[in-house]
Amino acid sequence: MPTSAIRTVDPVSTPEKTTTPEKTTTGAPAGPDETPGAGDLLVAGLRRTLDGRWHAVRDTVREQIDRPDLLPDPSRTLAQARARSLEEMQALAERGFAAAGFGADHGGTGDIGASITAIEMLGYADLSLMVKAGVQWGLFGGAVENLGTARHHERYVADIIDLDLLGCFAMTETGHGSNVQELETTATYDADTREFVIDSPTPSARKDYIGGAAEHATMAAVFAQLITAAPGAEPEGHGVHCFVVPIRDADGNDLPGVTTGDCGYKGGLAGVDNGRISFDHVRIPAENLLNRYGDVEADGTYRSPIDNVNKRFFTMLGTLIRGRVSVGATAGAAARKALTLATRYGLVRRQFDAPDTDDEILILDYLGHQRKLLPLIAKSYAIACAQNELTAELHEVQSSTDTGDEHSTRQRELESAAAGLKAYSTWHASHSINVAREACGGAGYLDENQLSILRGDIDVFTTFEGDNTVLTQLVAKELLSAYADDVRGLSAGGWVRFVAGMARDVVAEKTAVRQVVQTLLDSSDEDTEESALTDRATQIRLLRNREDHLVRTCAQRLRRARDDDNDAFEVFNNAQDHLLKVGRAHTERVVLEAFVQAIDDCDSRAAATLLSTVCDLFVYSALEDDLAWFLMHRHVSVERAKAIRRGVNELCLQLRPHARALVDAFGVPEGLLSAPMLDHG
Amino acid sequence: MPTSAIRTVDPVSTPEKTTTPEKTTTGAPAGPDETPGAGDLLVAGLRRTLDGRWHAVRDTVREQIDRPDLLPDPSRTLAQARARSLEEMQALAERGFAAAGFGADHGGTGDIGASITAIEMLGYADLSLMVKAGVQWGLFGGAVENLGTARHHERYVADIIDLDLLGCFAMTETGHGSNVQELETTATYDADTREFVIDSPTPSARKDYIGGAAEHATMAAVFAQLITAAPGAEPEGHGVHCFVVPIRDADGNDLPGVTTGDCGYKGGLAGVDNGRISFDHVRIPAENLLNRYGDVEADGTYRSPIDNVNKRFFTMLGTLIRGRVSVGATAGAAARKALTLATRYGLVRRQFDAPDTDDEILILDYLGHQRKLLPLIAKSYAIACAQNELTAELHEVQSSTDTGDEHSTRQRELESAAAGLKAYSTWHASHSINVAREACGGAGYLDENQLSILRGDIDVFTTFEGDNTVLTQLVAKELLSAYADDVRGLSAGGWVRFVAGMARDVVAEKTAVRQVVQTLLDSSDEDTEESALTDRATQIRLLRNREDHLVRTCAQRLRRARDDDNDAFEVFNNAQDHLLKVGRAHTERVVLEAFVQAIDDCDSRAAATLLSTVCDLFVYSALEDDLAWFLMHRHVSVERAKAIRRGVNELCLQLRPHARALVDAFGVPEGLLSAPMLDHG
Repeated sequence: MPTSAIRTVDPVSTPEKTTTPEKTTTGAPAGPDETPGAGDLLVAGLRRTLDGRWHAVRDTVREQIDRPDLLPDPSRTLAQARARSLEEMQALAERGFAAAGFGADHGGTGDIGASITAIEMLGYADLSLMVKAGVQWGLFGGAVENLGTARHHERYVADIIDLDLLGCFAMTETGHGSNVQELETTATYDADTREFVIDSPTPSARKDYIGGAAEHATMAAVFAQLITAAPGAEPEGHGVHCFVVPIRDADGNDLPGVTTGDCGYKGGLAGVDNGRISFDHVRIPAENLLNRYGDVEADGTYRSPIDNVNKRFFTMLGTLIRGRVSVGATAGAAARKALTLATRYGLVRRQFDAPDTDDEILILDYLGHQRKLLPLIAKSYAIACAQNELTAELHEVQSSTDTGDEHSTRQRELESAAAGLKAYSTWHASHSINVAREACGGAGYLDENQLSILRGDIDVFTTFEGDNTVLTQLVAKELLSAYADDVRGLSAGGWVRFVAGMARDVVAEKTAVRQVVQTLLDSSDEDTEESALTDRATQIRLLRNREDHLVRTCAQRLRRARDDDNDAFEVFNNAQDHLLKVGRAHTERVVLEAFVQAIDDCDSRAAATLLSTVCDLFVYSALEDDLAWFLMHRHVSVERAKAIRRGVNELCLQLRPHARALVDAFGVPEGLLSAPMLDHG
Repeated sequence: MPTSAIRTVDPVSTPEKTTTPEKTTTGAPAGPDETPGAGDLLVAGLRRTLDGRWHAVRDTVREQIDRPDLLPDPSRTLAQARARSLEEMQALAERGFAAAGFGADHGGTGDIGASITAIEMLGYADLSLMVKAGVQWGLFGGAVENLGTARHHERYVADIIDLDLLGCFAMTETGHGSNVQELETTATYDADTREFVIDSPTPSARKDYIGGAAEHATMAAVFAQLITAAPGAEPEGHGVHCFVVPIRDADGNDLPGVTTGDCGYKGGLAGVDNGRISFDHVRIPAENLLNRYGDVEADGTYRSPIDNVNKRFFTMLGTLIRGRVSVGATAGAAARKALTLATRYGLVRRQFDAPDTDDEILILDYLGHQRKLLPLIAKSYAIACAQNELTAELHEVQSSTDTGDEHSTRQRELESAAAGLKAYSTWHASHSINVAREACGGAGYLDENQLSILRGDIDVFTTFEGDNTVLTQLVAKELLSAYADDVRGLSAGGWVRFVAGMARDVVAEKTAVRQVVQTLLDSSDEDTEESALTDRATQIRLLRNREDHLVRTCAQRLRRARDDDNDAFEVFNNAQDHLLKVGRAHTERVVLEAFVQAIDDCDSRAAATLLSTVCDLFVYSALEDDLAWFLMHRHVSVERAKAIRRGVNELCLQLRPHARALVDAFGVPEGLLSAPMLDHG
């Protein structure tokens, strides 16, 4: 069977074979609008794929946010910017923006995927508004919804949806961000008064960086160590739980025992009032414990449906995954917007003489410029498809009423996928926005052209809602320890000792392979060096083989910890770069397969054909970015490596005529693309 | 002779040989101050190397700027921030800060190196102040000093030094940034009135992004196409020249015919009042032409000591190189400051359980964290040494009264070196500050900890004073066309045709090899694979061989333009990524050799030993960053590639105990390292 037959769609080209690009697609000067024929239809086809299952939600939000006045205005003071975000959030609430995120039995409409998608779309308008909305409805609301029980739902949810109750999510402390299990804030049960006493025993126990805590929130979902004594017993800690704690009165004054502070100016997100909260023995009624996974009886006896303290903690954390998914999704949107602005600039800006004409050359006609932007556009497509799948999986898992083992496994895999994609997407966004800014030179540095504001706003996305390095490591740890319940919460050394003791083959286990990928793999040559690099199956196999190789060799390294002469932490630490590579490689493979799936699902033949070339560029540049690894481990030959480099160039030249269509398909509302640089070039 | 004998200093270790690091240098938890013995002496020794020839100037400026009130304050409005920069610049002027940059015969003290070094040091305090000072004294003052003649020096220089005259440097236009030769502003000579008429004939001729133009500058050094008619002849263009044009009256109002505008909010540099200027037939006296390289006689006859219009233009541009050198130098300082903050944070911040102790692990004890920061610290050392050399060379060239061919060559090489290092250093700074921010998590995002402000301020350094991509390409073009006069100003296609027609061996020519490098090379094995990777000669040879290989193969590709079937622009464009790689590889080799020189010159044995390990890490990570290339072109074997990866890890662990000393040696004044995150971890 010829190898081309196994492609999902016809190849637009076979870059490896051609060394000179075809005349029609070379870097010669060309106008801004040159997508051949039926451009609108093509854009519509591409957009349908990018928009995914909740495409209707996207279109509704697009209409709602297509207003330049929604864009961040750098002339606002901090107070004005914050007031403005709140105001816009109120306008969203009035239009019922938040109902989808909450259960139908307590005031919502229960469409979680729609809720995530709507929040993501705010990324096209103003990241402060997205974060502000995400904190109120996703984090604070999500904690009440997912960690609370009927009494909390009845009492709070409707007010949260319509903003009669403004909340914040007080998890991170000055001393603990990544290591949430070691939070120092305490919630000690007082059986006499049937209250919890919330306290910050040390300066590092102060809640920090909390969105909403500086000004607007009147209530906080506070994560604290629950301490209670069963009758006649000594007080005992039961791990971190979440409590609803009023922090301000209606006039905005701190309540007794509460001291709030302001994080002040930040690198961006001026519209988010990040602040600090310290508690000095603040008393709250016992019912303010969000008690779905753990409760204290009147006499102080602790009860939980989950005996294991670690498992309980991670189950609670797991329900809060929406924030992380939203952050990854929104970063994707921000990257798409930045790339749209930079690409459009590249199509009006000219510099240096063009051959045989009086005009200068469009900067997007330089290969160097194409190489800056087009691979990032391709990666944005891939990430968007993976993000759509993740949102859908989150929707399914959280909409399900299952509680069995299968559901637990699915939840666990979802958490890992969310962690991996959040890191992958936010790093991509931070990098892309930086490149987009540079690609617009001085114009890119002026706030009037938006990129510099986006740059400042996106920055923290790589470290909030889970530090990217920690998350990437988490993905690897889950893979290597086969999602074993016992390992969560172990120290680095403890985890290594666990992995070292595992049976050899466990790490090779994989989640089910999706049909479209299996079909491709089944009908292709296993020898990646023999089969064409343009074959999708070869591409998938290269990323799968990399992942397998990395997992296997990492496990081997970690097994050194079985030797008593080796310090377990040292074994872990020496392998940390390897571990991080496992996490990245895994996520990249998952992203590719999601993109392949989306192309397979695409109804428009023209769109699918173009998407296939975009996918090629995504793969070729992913391979190029990690070429040293592929060469070093002999997964590609030197000749193939050179073909990959050439292939990136050739794919850039091929996609150049479609650059405008590719970014138009992102569907950033025109009103949000206001940038004077696009008028004059 | 054993290979170790050719090292400049004794190796601290031979990383390739060891696979497990020694116990004393592992990632086990360790306190913040653990540089063994004589720490202060070691720091002093390192600092002496970093401080270079103008170390006394550095110490003087350190004392002057050791004041937290100099740090940017994000609570200031734009107007306040601008006023504050001006005020601080005035304070500098009162202390005679600017005199060194101007000739002794017109009010200065004529110590160019001191002047550049002093400006660079401002990078530790406030990048807005540095840019503001750089515009006034380096760019505006530099234009008057270097393009003007006695009449301008007498009239303006003293006032520029003491700020009685505030100027701006009006080169860039809305339509032309990189391609300065095509500026549209015109200066047409009117023989009847003996005036020039300055005009902006199109909207894209508007001067844009001009520091000082929004508010403070009353005069502009305007770059415009000089047009004049000799008696009885048609008006003729003579290329871009510079004119001193008053733009505002003492009250800050635009002068007749002048329209200024404000670029408003930017990604950073709030204290710099960037603005726009349009001219509507503004008349200035003929003597306002800065006439060192071209003049117009009363009757309209144009005269220049340089006949060739291209050569004249590039000679003028070449004298303005100080701005570019200062920007690269300051970016280096900003990177060092950010790395100091992040490293100190890594030495107080703990997260996740440490083995066998109640404490958590210092984050700098994680290999992943070391890998983020230590290679960037090593690169900062290398860049600082190269920058010191560049500053010294600029000093020598501009202090010289030579005008012969040898001087021209030196000037030309200086320009290329300045372009290459500016791009290399500013990309490093932008990347390092980003990584430093991420390495401090949420704390890094708060302006109170400075990194987010630095991030915003540094951003434009990669594209102003020459876009980095354009500059990197310029380095390559100069190398490939052997600094031929005829090629400057040619279009891409024209340049390719020139290179294609050159004799084959011209491109292999190299500037003289410095003694220390020659000695190392002479006494070592040419076979890089056979000699130890820890040998300095091998390291140099790897970077030299890469550069030679790239230059040679790039020239081959470009020779395709000799074939008439190939479009010259297309040949150029298809090779653009290759060309950019040539530029980067060349500069990196130059940076390494400057570092080797500085270590050779180091008086302190302890410092030299540590510097040698730092240099190893610089080389190993440079090799790692480009490992695919080295493998693909068989300059390193797979085994050696793996040794390089391992070597980076091992060098990180080795340098970990010296992390504090390494950043302390940067000598950022303590008053400028104010950051609450360093108090609590």
